[in-house]
Amino acid sequence: MRISYDDMLKKFKDILVKKGFPEEEAYQSAKIFTDNSLDGVYSHGVNRFSKVINYIDKGHITVGVKPEKVEGFGGYERWDGRQGMGNLNARFSMDRAIKLAKDFGIGLVALRNTNHWMRGGTYGWQAADSGCVGICWTNTLPNMPPWGGQDIRIGNNPFIIAIPRSDGRHLVVDMAMSQFSYGKIEQYKLKGSQLPIPGGFDKDGNLTTDPEAIEETSRVLPTGYWKGSSLSIALDLVAAVLSGGNSTYDIGRLGEGEDEFSISQVFIAIDQARFNLPEISDEMVTNTIEFIKSSKPVDSETTILYPGERVLKTRQENLDQGIPVNETIWKEILSL
Amino acid sequence: MRISYDDMLKKFKDILVKKGFPEEEAYQSAKIFTDNSLDGVYSHGVNRFSKVINYIDKGHITVGVKPEKVEGFGGYERWDGRQGMGNLNARFSMDRAIKLAKDFGIGLVALRNTNHWMRGGTYGWQAADSGCVGICWTNTLPNMPPWGGQDIRIGNNPFIIAIPRSDGRHLVVDMAMSQFSYGKIEQYKLKGSQLPIPGGFDKDGNLTTDPEAIEETSRVLPTGYWKGSSLSIALDLVAAVLSGGNSTYDIGRLGEGEDEFSISQVFIAIDQARFNLPEISDEMVTNTIEFIKSSKPVDSETTILYPGERVLKTRQENLDQGIPVNETIWKEILSL
Repeated sequence: MRISYDDMLKKFKDILVKKGFPEEEAYQSAKIFTDNSLDGVYSHGVNRFSKVINYIDKGHITVGVKPEKVEGFGGYERWDGRQGMGNLNARFSMDRAIKLAKDFGIGLVALRNTNHWMRGGTYGWQAADSGCVGICWTNTLPNMPPWGGQDIRIGNNPFIIAIPRSDGRHLVVDMAMSQFSYGKIEQYKLKGSQLPIPGGFDKDGNLTTDPEAIEETSRVLPTGYWKGSSLSIALDLVAAVLSGGNSTYDIGRLGEGEDEFSISQVFIAIDQARFNLPEISDEMVTNTIEFIKSSKPVDSETTILYPGERVLKTRQENLDQGIPVNETIWKEILSL
Repeated sequence: MRISYDDMLKKFKDILVKKGFPEEEAYQSAKIFTDNSLDGVYSHGVNRFSKVINYIDKGHITVGVKPEKVEGFGGYERWDGRQGMGNLNARFSMDRAIKLAKDFGIGLVALRNTNHWMRGGTYGWQAADSGCVGICWTNTLPNMPPWGGQDIRIGNNPFIIAIPRSDGRHLVVDMAMSQFSYGKIEQYKLKGSQLPIPGGFDKDGNLTTDPEAIEETSRVLPTGYWKGSSLSIALDLVAAVLSGGNSTYDIGRLGEGEDEFSISQVFIAIDQARFNLPEISDEMVTNTIEFIKSSKPVDSETTILYPGERVLKTRQENLDQGIPVNETIWKEILSL
C-alpha cells in the first residue's frame, strides 16, 4: 500500500503531539520521518517510527527538551542534547553549524547525550540546501567486530558528506561503516537469496554471502574490511572526544548492548558559497558527474549513478504515487 | 640493506639542495621522506624519492616557491600551492589550519595547485602532535573505475583522521579509497601469491584475487565497493570546490592520465584541547583501545591493532636497526 506524504506527516505529527511534544517540534520531527520515507530510506522513516515511540515510552528519549550549549569558542561549539529526540537535536545542531559557518567560514557542533538521528543524509541535504558543504557523523552502540576480532566491539557509525548544487540536486554520500546493515541482510534472508558480495562471517570464521549464516554470528563485515573498521574507531572517538560525550564503548555499557541512547555526533558546515560563485562550483560538480557517468557500464543493465542521484528519483516517484508502506507496519503505527 | 635515519635524511637533503631548494626547505622535505620511510611507509618515502626528483626535472614540481594565500574568512582559508613541492605545501597547510584552529576553534585550509603529499598520515600526526584532531585528504589523478563502470574515472583520494594522545601515541587512520594500492598488488604479483580478498576485476568483469588479472585491466576495486566509489567522488569534489582548484577529472586531462600534478587538498584542524582536559580525552581513547583489543582474535596468530599502532612499532624497529631499503632503489638515489 501507499500513503500520501501529507497523510503520513499528519499521522506522525499527531502521535508525537499525543506523546507530549510541542506542536512545532512534533511537526519538525514528523517531517524528518516522512521526508526519509519519501526519499526511500524507509528503514529510518516509517519502518523505524514505532521503535522511536517505544524508546520514548521506555524513557530513553526525553520529550520536550532542547539542546543546551555547554561551551564554545569561535567556530567550534559543544552542545548537550539532554537525551532529547535525535532527529530534532541533529537538525538543530546542523542549523547551528551552518550559522557558525556563516560567521567563521567553518562551523563545528559536537553534540553529546543525543539519540539516533534516523537518516544521517538528512543533515547533509540540510547543509547543502544552505549552500554549505556538510560533513557529519554519529557513533552508535557496538554492532560489529573490529578487524581481526570475533566480538562485537565497534559501531557502524554512519558518515555523511554533502556538496551543494544551486539547483538543489546536491551530491550526498551517506554511508555506514558496515558493508550491509542488519536490515539489508534480513531483507536478503526473507527473499531467500545470497548477498551479492560477502557481508560477514559464518560460525567457522569464513567470509560468506549467506544472510542466515551472518545473522547466526552477528559478525557483519566492516566496509572495506580493515579500512572500515579503522574509520569506525576514529569517527567514534572524534565524536566522543570533541563532544565530551559517550563513545561506542560507553554506549554499549549504558544500553547493555541492546538499547542505544545517549550517543555523540559531529556536525561540520563550510560556507563554500562565500568564495566560489555558485556557477563555478556547479560546473565543477557537473563536469565530474558527466565524466563518471560517461564510463562504459559493466553491463547493459547497469546505470552509473552519482551519490544522491537515486534519492531524487525515488523522491519524485513517491511524491507522485504515495510512499510505499508495509501494511503490518502501518497498522502498528495507526494503533499508537 | 638498512640505512640509518641520519644518513638517509642527509642524502635526501643534499639532493634537494642540488636541485635548487633553499637549505631549510630541503631539510624539511627530506625529513618527511625519511620519516615516512622510518614509519614503514616506504612507498611514499625512499621508494618514491626518485620519481619526485624526476617530476622536478620534468617541470611538474616547481622548486623554491611558497604557498600564497588566495583569500580567507575566519577559520576557512584558500591557498595556492603554486605547483611547489607537495610535502612542503601540505606541511605548511596543516600548520596554517592548526593556527586557525587555535584562533577560531576549528580551521580549514583548502589548497589548490599543489603536488603529491607523499604519505597523508604525516599531516594527521602533525595535527595530533599539536593537540588537535586532524582531518585531511587529497584528490589524485583518475586511477579507479567508478562503481558500475569499466573505465578509470575516479581517484583513490587518501583520507586521514588523527586523534591526539598526550603521550604521542596518536590514533591515526590513513586510508586510500582503493582496497589495495597498485604497489600492493604488484607486491603480491612479485611474490607469486593471490590477494587475501578480491582487489579488482579480471577482463571478464569478475571480481578476482589474482594480481596479474587486475594489472591487466587496471580495474582496481574501491574500498567497500560502491561505498568507496561514492566517498572518493565526494572527497574529490569537496577539495576542488573549496580550493577552487582541479578535480580528479581536471587532473586526468592535465597529465593525460599518466602524470599527476596540480592537485587539490583539504586540511582541517580542531583544537580539541581547548575544552577537554587531555587526561579525560586520553582516558576515552584508552578505554576504547582496550575494549577493542580485548575482543577474542579470529585466530591465534592475529593481534588486534588500533589505527596507528603498527606505525609506532615499525618506527622503533627502524630507528634501532636502520631503515630497510632495496639496493637497486638506493643505488638509483645515490646516482641522483
